[in-house]
Amino acid sequence: MDSNWKAQSYARLNKGVRAVALARQRQLVKPPGSLGGLEELAVRLAAMQGDERPSLDNAAIVIFAADHGIAAESVPAFAQADTGEMLKRFARGGAAICVLAGTLNAELEAVNLGIVNDPGELPNVVRAIIAPSTANFAQEPAMTESQMELAMQAGRDSVFRAVKNGAQIYIGGEIGIANTTAATALSCALLNASPQELAGPDSGLDHAGVAHKIEVIQRALELHGFIPSPAGGSGIEGEGALEVLRRVGGFEIAALTGAYLTCAQLGLPVLVDGFITTAAALVAVRLVPQCADWLIYAHGSAEPGHARLLQSLNVQPLLHLGMHLGEGSGAATALPLLRAACALHNGMAIFAEAAVSGKI
Amino acid sequence: MDSNWKAQSYARLNKGVRAVALARQRQLVKPPGSLGGLEELAVRLAAMQGDERPSLDNAAIVIFAADHGIAAESVPAFAQADTGEMLKRFARGGAAICVLAGTLNAELEAVNLGIVNDPGELPNVVRAIIAPSTANFAQEPAMTESQMELAMQAGRDSVFRAVKNGAQIYIGGEIGIANTTAATALSCALLNASPQELAGPDSGLDHAGVAHKIEVIQRALELHGFIPSPAGGSGIEGEGALEVLRRVGGFEIAALTGAYLTCAQLGLPVLVDGFITTAAALVAVRLVPQCADWLIYAHGSAEPGHARLLQSLNVQPLLHLGMHLGEGSGAATALPLLRAACALHNGMAIFAEAAVSGKI
Repeated sequence: MDSNWKAQSYARLNKGVRAVALARQRQLVKPPGSLGGLEELAVRLAAMQGDERPSLDNAAIVIFAADHGIAAESVPAFAQADTGEMLKRFARGGAAICVLAGTLNAELEAVNLGIVNDPGELPNVVRAIIAPSTANFAQEPAMTESQMELAMQAGRDSVFRAVKNGAQIYIGGEIGIANTTAATALSCALLNASPQELAGPDSGLDHAGVAHKIEVIQRALELHGFIPSPAGGSGIEGEGALEVLRRVGGFEIAALTGAYLTCAQLGLPVLVDGFITTAAALVAVRLVPQCADWLIYAHGSAEPGHARLLQSLNVQPLLHLGMHLGEGSGAATALPLLRAACALHNGMAIFAEAAVSGKI
Repeated sequence: MDSNWKAQSYARLNKGVRAVALARQRQLVKPPGSLGGLEELAVRLAAMQGDERPSLDNAAIVIFAADHGIAAESVPAFAQADTGEMLKRFARGGAAICVLAGTLNAELEAVNLGIVNDPGELPNVVRAIIAPSTANFAQEPAMTESQMELAMQAGRDSVFRAVKNGAQIYIGGEIGIANTTAATALSCALLNASPQELAGPDSGLDHAGVAHKIEVIQRALELHGFIPSPAGGSGIEGEGALEVLRRVGGFEIAALTGAYLTCAQLGLPVLVDGFITTAAALVAVRLVPQCADWLIYAHGSAEPGHARLLQSLNVQPLLHLGMHLGEGSGAATALPLLRAACALHNGMAIFAEAAVSGKI
């Protein structure tokens, strides 16, 4: 394992193809701009794929599962043992993402990075066990440096598998009880924001539960020296983002960051899901700003921290349906919009063709 | 033709099935509410179809094409002859809606209600010619009573064809140069709003073009006695809505109103597209309020009047992508979201099943 891979070069959008695709959009038999956001999506995907006629027929969906030591502080609404149960339901095909992947004809796998209640070998689940869970980041860093590298490498490896299978777009998702707490702490440090601003009910916390979560995150931020302050500007950037990830993140968040960075190196478009995945995306972008070129945001989740992350990234997600399930479910729900953008871009008649036929 | 069909009975949602579907949603292997708007969509579709497990595999898309006498006032950004060209492009399969219908495996037809530059017989285009165009509603009512009845009946007939073909959802769309002007005038009267508030750039008007459009609509509203006033409340209701439709609407808008009313009578779910179709929907709902139960709104268009129509109907559309093409393109783009809602509702494991297997 070469932990220096993050310093390797990153792909650039193909500006020539972008110009050709933009010209094509202007020739389609419709008033300019009348397809709204679908037009820019198609042009952007063309520039990403280096192909005037982009295609997303082959989509890879990878779900990272991991447990979190912070669950010991009793923040989640569900018991930690549920992570393993969720992974088992995934393997049996009953999870939301399984249903969606089926309708999308997408490749789907999970990666088990470490679960307290480890279900062992399961179909369509890659084992990349780092530890039964991260450490409790209210007491110590969530990960050692080598654990974080392993997690990022697991994400990276999933992208290599996806590319080998012909994937034209990568969707990452996550399963992990308490990972909203980790993502919130991570977001506080990266955005220089307080847990009061960002913490939400996640999958069912009541008012007291949210208050407790805020208190736990506040304590952790103090421990690690990430206390929001007026001097903190827009938060921690550069290599510092990785240290935030190590101290208050999680295995699946690190894996997602590693996957997104790798997609940006290989020039593979990414459809980012919800709050947890956007936190991972922000780490990637803070480390390598041009990574942003490869990330499309699927939906705005119901979790309040998500809107702040998206704002900081200066992006608009495609959907606002109040989803907050995780598992990559929001991205899978949005994928047909990207496919529609490609189909329209590639399949509509153009005025020039119509003119040639004398039938315009 | 029996013009009294509008007074026949309207279907009711199946409350029993709704309750069963809601109970099923609560048993799916996910935190309650975590699928956001997709959950309510699935439950609503179950209640509409009277089936605990709703399906939208078979979708019918019908595009109504018509010309507008108001085009003589030089309001549209495109020449009136373009309506016929658009219909020809539709018949050749190059229009946006053709591409989308193909990706959705949906039944697609157009209905020609009357076009100045009539292209004649075309594949997949039903001829239901009423007149080459409506009259110029800045000078006289757009339609006679019998013309409006013919247009509404053409919409009604398209629903019967859709049902015969097994359609599980109905999408109506429109093609017609200047129909945004008609829909805006209609909206002003129905919402008791001024054209200054509702008129927009449509498919490419500049500032002067919009100002001219406002002036034309204002003049028409004065002619027909639909001047907005503080005493006008929330606009014209009941049978009066049909008279507004007749005076300032268009053939395709009347056909859409007839189609939506018929869907509501037969209990067929409708996915409403954008501004023009929502104006038609508002006429239907003002005439028969319970028609609202059968209408799902696909997207918020870029046209400013659309937001006001949706607000008046007290509905939230699924998408906000800034689309404003017409042709049913926004509804077709949103259909995969409804299908995802059904797939998740029908296909996810439920906790009870998991418990039976001893694997929860």
